[in-house]
Amino acid sequence: MPQSPTPDIRFEPPEPLRKIVESHQVHAALEWLEVTPPHVIADELARMDAVNAGIAFRLLDKDRALDVFEELEPVDQQQILEGLRDHSFLELVEAMDPDDRARMLREAPAKVAKRVLAGLSANERRMTSALLGYPEGSVGRYMTPEFVALSQDLTVEQALATVRAKGGHAETVYTLPVVDQGKRLTGIVELRELVLSPPETMVSELVVTEPMSARATESAEDAARLMRETNDLNLPVVDSEDRLVGLLTIDDAVEVIEAADTEDVARQSGAAPWSGHYMAASVWQLARSRALWLSLLLVAATLTVSVTQAFEGTLERVTQLAMFIPLLIGAGGNAGAQAATSCVRALAVGEVRGSDLLRVIGRECRVGLVLGGLLAVLGLAVGTIFASAKIALVVGITLVLICGWAATIGGTMPLLAKRLRIDPAVVSAPMVTTLVDATGLIIYFVTAKAVLGI
Amino acid sequence: MPQSPTPDIRFEPPEPLRKIVESHQVHAALEWLEVTPPHVIADELARMDAVNAGIAFRLLDKDRALDVFEELEPVDQQQILEGLRDHSFLELVEAMDPDDRARMLREAPAKVAKRVLAGLSANERRMTSALLGYPEGSVGRYMTPEFVALSQDLTVEQALATVRAKGGHAETVYTLPVVDQGKRLTGIVELRELVLSPPETMVSELVVTEPMSARATESAEDAARLMRETNDLNLPVVDSEDRLVGLLTIDDAVEVIEAADTEDVARQSGAAPWSGHYMAASVWQLARSRALWLSLLLVAATLTVSVTQAFEGTLERVTQLAMFIPLLIGAGGNAGAQAATSCVRALAVGEVRGSDLLRVIGRECRVGLVLGGLLAVLGLAVGTIFASAKIALVVGITLVLICGWAATIGGTMPLLAKRLRIDPAVVSAPMVTTLVDATGLIIYFVTAKAVLGI
Repeated sequence: MPQSPTPDIRFEPPEPLRKIVESHQVHAALEWLEVTPPHVIADELARMDAVNAGIAFRLLDKDRALDVFEELEPVDQQQILEGLRDHSFLELVEAMDPDDRARMLREAPAKVAKRVLAGLSANERRMTSALLGYPEGSVGRYMTPEFVALSQDLTVEQALATVRAKGGHAETVYTLPVVDQGKRLTGIVELRELVLSPPETMVSELVVTEPMSARATESAEDAARLMRETNDLNLPVVDSEDRLVGLLTIDDAVEVIEAADTEDVARQSGAAPWSGHYMAASVWQLARSRALWLSLLLVAATLTVSVTQAFEGTLERVTQLAMFIPLLIGAGGNAGAQAATSCVRALAVGEVRGSDLLRVIGRECRVGLVLGGLLAVLGLAVGTIFASAKIALVVGITLVLICGWAATIGGTMPLLAKRLRIDPAVVSAPMVTTLVDATGLIIYFVTAKAVLGI
Repeated sequence: MPQSPTPDIRFEPPEPLRKIVESHQVHAALEWLEVTPPHVIADELARMDAVNAGIAFRLLDKDRALDVFEELEPVDQQQILEGLRDHSFLELVEAMDPDDRARMLREAPAKVAKRVLAGLSANERRMTSALLGYPEGSVGRYMTPEFVALSQDLTVEQALATVRAKGGHAETVYTLPVVDQGKRLTGIVELRELVLSPPETMVSELVVTEPMSARATESAEDAARLMRETNDLNLPVVDSEDRLVGLLTIDDAVEVIEAADTEDVARQSGAAPWSGHYMAASVWQLARSRALWLSLLLVAATLTVSVTQAFEGTLERVTQLAMFIPLLIGAGGNAGAQAATSCVRALAVGEVRGSDLLRVIGRECRVGLVLGGLLAVLGLAVGTIFASAKIALVVGITLVLICGWAATIGGTMPLLAKRLRIDPAVVSAPMVTTLVDATGLIIYFVTAKAVLGI
């Protein structure tokens, strides 16, 4: 560990930072930055080109980054911001070792983040916000930094004047976050309230304190579903120190929800989520998005081959049993898919939580047995028509057991996945179906052996 | 047909309308209303109790209803509106013959509709809007009648004063529809524009003319998806004569989209859409929502029994063929489900239209054959391990054919459904799977007979 230097206004670093950064020595740069006081770092950054200054700046930890940023002249601040938005900065970061990249991508200070993102289009913002430490699918990737914040000690008239002065470039002026001196979110006020109130009213009388908010690093889907629950038009976004960094607007929230739903639907059918337009995708792209799961399911389905092989003797004696295999595993698969789909959806919209596991198991098992009982009546008829009363009995009993079992598995697996922090939608209906196929065959052959006495 | 009377200010109807309506003689009431001038009808309505006056009023056609309404004193207008909101009015209408009910539920005049719905909660509004002629799932059921409309010849200052005067009860003041003298929608102006513009600006300079709008009788899902495309916060809703009746707000649009997606997901797994909370539903309710489809699918699956029976001879000679049945129909089912799910979703979000049928068939067929080729490699391996090279060849060829066929069917059926004006989501993955099961078995056995020469 290098020794921390005693603060010294004329501290002279041993080697210029520019050279270290240009030769991509991340660890040396980190050491350099650690032993150097903020005003010296600021001087050095001012002398570097925008992209390298950006790199050096992003290697600072959050508190020091803000200190250094404050030390910079406005023109040099601007240069750093441009460096962070530059395409070659993005390329440099992507070419780094994963360790170094992770170090680069810690959450940036709210003030810097807001200014980096301001003025960018939604697409540019999404790309750039990755570089500010907001993980994929996080609120930070979707928020707008272009809003009008108010302070609490204004009158309505002054507040409206602020909106008029600063609102031209804001993405929305309908929700106005209220912040304290340290830029911490303390409340929100709706433009509607300002417009409908007498001009001399104090903003503090209209403010909603302790508003809903989301952290920039949290899941955008959760934040969007929260907005849907509360019917808010805009959700304030804060950094880990509660400093306001942006607003998540309802149109972006709707986009997030729709994308999440599309992804869940794709997963449910055992295809990788394909984010592009269906008609724009080539045959190869469509095939690729489906190939992995289809192959995995086929490999898993070899279980059904070995189960059937194990009972080959039974089958040879009563070939008629083969006739009902597709019907029985089809029914089990359908019952399992129904249970899995409704549980995945209930989890997605927040009606069921991971902790409801045991209750869901109990419910789905009973639902499955009820449905199995119903199907058994039909199964008895089909079995009698196509084979014999004894085989019909086998089919009926198997249907009750298979449906109960399939619904239980279908209801359990999404919740288990949730507990294990896997996306429940990955536990798709086809996965449940394939699992139920193999176990369903065992239920069928064991029942057949017992009832037919073979 | 009764003769139309000559207009006469002292026209005397043969029997009081009150008696006819109270004895539920719908046809007599219709005749009475047809031969009577508006001011006489207004007099009669004023003498009746609220619910019966409401019934008589709703039997008038749209133009005459508006004429009569204009003739009524404000206090009597209020009584009619209350009658239309009354619970016993709802019960009376529900108890009517379907023919008479349909006659009652023609679209009401915009002015009356707005005033009936104003002041009601969202739930009351949804119930009551049925009585104003807005079909289930239509925009009219979700719109709010509480908005502030502006006329074009105001200054920004006057417009803001209007918003301040009338906006207190409005559900939203962020989108302000602009109407002409006849209450026809001519444009919209955003509150944001008013707040950001100098007070002396004319509203006409800020107005967006020819704004997007929806008819109250159109599908709420289509309108909501349109809003999602255009990122509008509020969509003006008009009647069949372009008169403004309400606004569809974004929070209701999001609710509509989410409900539609949940419904599609449920349908995809072969369950009836269940609109309630998952944990609040009883075991019986869950079972009931799934029972119908599960039973239909089982009945459809008897096809697989007859196919297998038809090839019983083949199976008896080579029992090993039975081993691969679950694997093969599973693979076909999965390939079909993937295709069906992505096409249903692409239709729902508008990426594919009914007219793309042939292109979709071509694409899905090729995607299926590509995937089938991939699976065939795995199938050859599995077949060789568990049986023989010859049977492996049968399995491989069958996989190519089954996957191509399944993907084609999966892609075709939702689009066919769309063309036939059936909800494509009803053509669910399990339906495709069951269909593919039976036909897949035919492909398998025919291939086996050809390759094995039996």
